[in-house]
Amino acid sequence: MRLAELSERSGIPTATIKYYLREKLLPPGHRVSATQAEYGEEHLRRLRLVRALIQVGRMPVATAREVLNAAEDESLAHHTRLGIAVSALPHGPEPTADDPATTAAHHEVEALLHRLSPPPAHDARDLPAYGTLINAVAALARLGYPHDAAHLAPYARLARELAVTDLDMVEAYDTPAEQVEAAVALTVLYEPVLLSLRRLAEADESHRRFGREQATDPKEPDANPA
Amino acid sequence: MRLAELSERSGIPTATIKYYLREKLLPPGHRVSATQAEYGEEHLRRLRLVRALIQVGRMPVATAREVLNAAEDESLAHHTRLGIAVSALPHGPEPTADDPATTAAHHEVEALLHRLSPPPAHDARDLPAYGTLINAVAALARLGYPHDAAHLAPYARLARELAVTDLDMVEAYDTPAEQVEAAVALTVLYEPVLLSLRRLAEADESHRRFGREQATDPKEPDANPA
Repeated sequence: MRLAELSERSGIPTATIKYYLREKLLPPGHRVSATQAEYGEEHLRRLRLVRALIQVGRMPVATAREVLNAAEDESLAHHTRLGIAVSALPHGPEPTADDPATTAAHHEVEALLHRLSPPPAHDARDLPAYGTLINAVAALARLGYPHDAAHLAPYARLARELAVTDLDMVEAYDTPAEQVEAAVALTVLYEPVLLSLRRLAEADESHRRFGREQATDPKEPDANPA
Repeated sequence: MRLAELSERSGIPTATIKYYLREKLLPPGHRVSATQAEYGEEHLRRLRLVRALIQVGRMPVATAREVLNAAEDESLAHHTRLGIAVSALPHGPEPTADDPATTAAHHEVEALLHRLSPPPAHDARDLPAYGTLINAVAALARLGYPHDAAHLAPYARLARELAVTDLDMVEAYDTPAEQVEAAVALTVLYEPVLLSLRRLAEADESHRRFGREQATDPKEPDANPA
């Protein structure tokens, strides 16, 4: 298809597509004349991923390019491509090692991984998400909120169930290239889905547990008189 | 305790505590002389929550004050206080109603809530998290990724299990005031825990499914020769 059709089918203005081409977020089309190029379904798919990263994931162009380069390196094993592409997604700063809360966090996260059944299939300590987890647990420790392996365990168990759902969704795509793109896009796009569903479920569970209670101050009228 | 002790026990410099007092993020101490005030355990607890909101949740001071005002309004029923405080947490923009993807998202989210068992205990449509969910599902729809109620259902089910764990953790605190503070702090502090555990679990599940595959290009050496 020509640029105009690519724009129409993707809903992205031609000027934006030309910008993505210049920034190498999109591979060049197949040149058919001095002024025209032909684009395929893979360009449409790639545009979709670029929008997921830049518009929804609010990623800088340079970061998006890094993610996309990893996603398209066909010399890598499929698992490695998936991993590199997802690891290139933005994450928090590296943990600082010299603080008692960070030391406690390392200890609890190691204890958490040791109690998982089945045990982890590989060493996760080099992944950016491991550093993010350490920082998040260290923040809990620093503020005196529950952060021990026993409290973290239900979250880790549910995260594993989510990952099975996520990977099933990725494997529903036919080709390795589509699977890598889907893994990146769905990791980014399902994060707000998950966080908002958790907040809604918290509100619902709070209503279930406390919803029948009266105001602690008798001045407060009962919104739902029985 | 005096300001110096409050600073030492909280690990927050006295200048920062004075700033929080001026900004009304912390209630004033009990004045014991023209220049000195006495602070209690509730000040220590409140400081912990302020740090969770501002330093970890990266919330502007005005937003943090709004959350804290809701958390301390004892004229409200406990469930209402919990809900108002959590709803005051930052969330995304309101959905725009006039786009086919947003209409599709409303339809799928309603279908999702209808298939939950047990059904939701209350109407969630006024909660900010409902708008965030609509936006996230609309982004999936716009980009052509799975976004139907059937695909969302496992995430909703797991979010409900998380909410039970979250509320159990909140109920472990003794007083209503502590419970409201914990609900706000744990909502904010466990979000990065959950997202990083999901990314780690995805990497692990990917290793389990694809880790034994060879590189598609024979130039790529096998990192783990059998």
